[in-house]
Amino acid sequence: MENFNFYVPTHVCFGEGQIKQLTTVLKPYGKKVLMVYGGGSIKKNGIYDDAVSRMKADNFEIIELAGVEPNPRIDTVRRGVEMCRENNIEVILAVGGGSTIDCSKAIAAGVKYEGDPWDFTKDRSLVKDALPLVTILTMAATGSEMNMGSVITNLETNEKLATGGVAMIPKASILDPTYTYTVNKWQTAAGSADILSHLFECYFTVNEGAAVQNRIAEGLMKTVLEYAPIALTDPTNYEARSNLMWSSSLALNGLTRLGKKGVWSCHPIEHELSAFYDITHGIGLAIITPSWMRYILSEQTVEKFVSFAENVWDIDSNNRDPFDVANEGIDKLVESFKSWGIPMTLAEVGIDHEKIRLMSELAVKHSTISEDAFVALNADDVEKILLACM
Amino acid sequence: MENFNFYVPTHVCFGEGQIKQLTTVLKPYGKKVLMVYGGGSIKKNGIYDDAVSRMKADNFEIIELAGVEPNPRIDTVRRGVEMCRENNIEVILAVGGGSTIDCSKAIAAGVKYEGDPWDFTKDRSLVKDALPLVTILTMAATGSEMNMGSVITNLETNEKLATGGVAMIPKASILDPTYTYTVNKWQTAAGSADILSHLFECYFTVNEGAAVQNRIAEGLMKTVLEYAPIALTDPTNYEARSNLMWSSSLALNGLTRLGKKGVWSCHPIEHELSAFYDITHGIGLAIITPSWMRYILSEQTVEKFVSFAENVWDIDSNNRDPFDVANEGIDKLVESFKSWGIPMTLAEVGIDHEKIRLMSELAVKHSTISEDAFVALNADDVEKILLACM
Repeated sequence: MENFNFYVPTHVCFGEGQIKQLTTVLKPYGKKVLMVYGGGSIKKNGIYDDAVSRMKADNFEIIELAGVEPNPRIDTVRRGVEMCRENNIEVILAVGGGSTIDCSKAIAAGVKYEGDPWDFTKDRSLVKDALPLVTILTMAATGSEMNMGSVITNLETNEKLATGGVAMIPKASILDPTYTYTVNKWQTAAGSADILSHLFECYFTVNEGAAVQNRIAEGLMKTVLEYAPIALTDPTNYEARSNLMWSSSLALNGLTRLGKKGVWSCHPIEHELSAFYDITHGIGLAIITPSWMRYILSEQTVEKFVSFAENVWDIDSNNRDPFDVANEGIDKLVESFKSWGIPMTLAEVGIDHEKIRLMSELAVKHSTISEDAFVALNADDVEKILLACM
Repeated sequence: MENFNFYVPTHVCFGEGQIKQLTTVLKPYGKKVLMVYGGGSIKKNGIYDDAVSRMKADNFEIIELAGVEPNPRIDTVRRGVEMCRENNIEVILAVGGGSTIDCSKAIAAGVKYEGDPWDFTKDRSLVKDALPLVTILTMAATGSEMNMGSVITNLETNEKLATGGVAMIPKASILDPTYTYTVNKWQTAAGSADILSHLFECYFTVNEGAAVQNRIAEGLMKTVLEYAPIALTDPTNYEARSNLMWSSSLALNGLTRLGKKGVWSCHPIEHELSAFYDITHGIGLAIITPSWMRYILSEQTVEKFVSFAENVWDIDSNNRDPFDVANEGIDKLVESFKSWGIPMTLAEVGIDHEKIRLMSELAVKHSTISEDAFVALNADDVEKILLACM
């Protein structure tokens, strides 16, 4: 196990009705709030009205930034920073999924930074301070509600890049599983695939000895695989929605990642797809992941895939060829994604051959996967992985 | 899943050599330190010298409270509170295992309370504020390094009672697995049994639907069961010590407990054994646990024990009597404890029949196990469980 620092001070208020804690968790930071949200679904399902009326009853002053995009854009971040400065905002309230929260994180840090917030994606050390951030989560997926990460898209440069810093960790997050009852099948499937991908990225790593992390990751994978199908067929099933929601936060708050070496593989590749084609992040990941798994499966990695097959899928490996066992585990994953209604080819989400080479080169350029990934990947490798998804 | 609040702001510095962060994590709170430790093993293994020399080089002022007992006593807490007041202590540094940390928590809160700190064990709401606490962990067991709990013993009244409060959560904890290399076999076995017991207490609960918590608990159980034997035969095995240490913290920081109903069963019973006979806590738990499991195994609980057998011990339950499967899981646990060198009867740790009835009655009196346990236990039940351990 590698050395690490674990620091997750987010106060998580989990469960139905936890919105009752909203003003209590906001108040220590001030009463001038920038409320950030996305396309307006929170106005349909009542979350907007509930949050606003509670804040107004407690004399909060609310400025709104609506319309954050599914892959949140740097222009929106810049606009948010300006709004905070013009209105002397004291605390940011993000109401939404990972995109809204990521955007709010960049705004929060941007307010305390003199330059352009896009700089954060090039140099994380510039994230030194930030306005306090509180979140109300409406989708189980990115884990952004309980970590320091943020992914921002620049459509001018076709870049979708990650940044982050301790100052960006939400002070408090309200996680009410009933808020995800209205998340549709597509987004539920995409969110669940995103959670799994976070777990895979942390699980399939070079170094060993991090058993705690691996066993927790396997436990969370099993939970997602058990409950995603239930949430898809029975969207108001509280048990399913609550387990998916808590899995999303724990999958990416450091528990499964810290103490391990290396960088992620599928996310840098998917970020290129989203940057050029603006596709749903979790869907892109679901398409890429099995192709990546089969591409890197080798004598060097097979043992890890056998663990995956045994511990996550309960596949018996006794007296069997480890490659058969490994492939059976990957097959099971593909079956699951398909059964969730996820299209398993790039063609189905509108991506043709045109930019495959360019995206492959940029995935390598924008990350260190050619050096630090579980299996190092150069542009040719990425291209082969993507071509196998066509 | 029940509603819950998760708030664990402890900055964990994990890994070999993390003592280098000691003065950095202390400094925000002040330079007048009460250094609390136990029987002096930290003077033999060099941890004391290393910590003191680092603090002195940075001009910290150190007052020492040495000799904290294995079951820390309220008298020592009172003495610590006085020392803090006399010396205007700004921050407490606990160096040791759970006993030293628990004692330090009670001191930290005691300083900010006008009455007697023993009151905290009768009314947790009295724990309103506390001096900041930093810990250096030297034993993997109680999880006190990353939570708000504290267990204190009053030898005058033969009471060993738990208390706790948010103010008691350590601000930072240095977890260096090499510091546990010198922990002897007895204490390593006891500590591992204590970790397992925390997981069992949270796992065997009435309500269902908390799959995330259950899968994480199973993963941590597997980790402890894999690495305890390795640490016992190869005490300087870093992989084993690091996985045990990180398991100890995560087993009791809320991850496996929150979102579930009910109170613990074996701990209240063991606390009576320790209060009357001052035995090693983890050993007491290891003796009681299998007896408790067999006593409460019934048509109502068998399903949970089958999950335990399947998911933790990889026992195949297909076409088998669930009670056979359940008992096989419990048998495996007993075998493990025995193989770790733990005596599995009360007689072997010097406990005879004399106080069994009294301790059974007090276990019920000092807790709510007669109402809120996984299976409700009255004094007769506890007596039968203890008699089965003779």
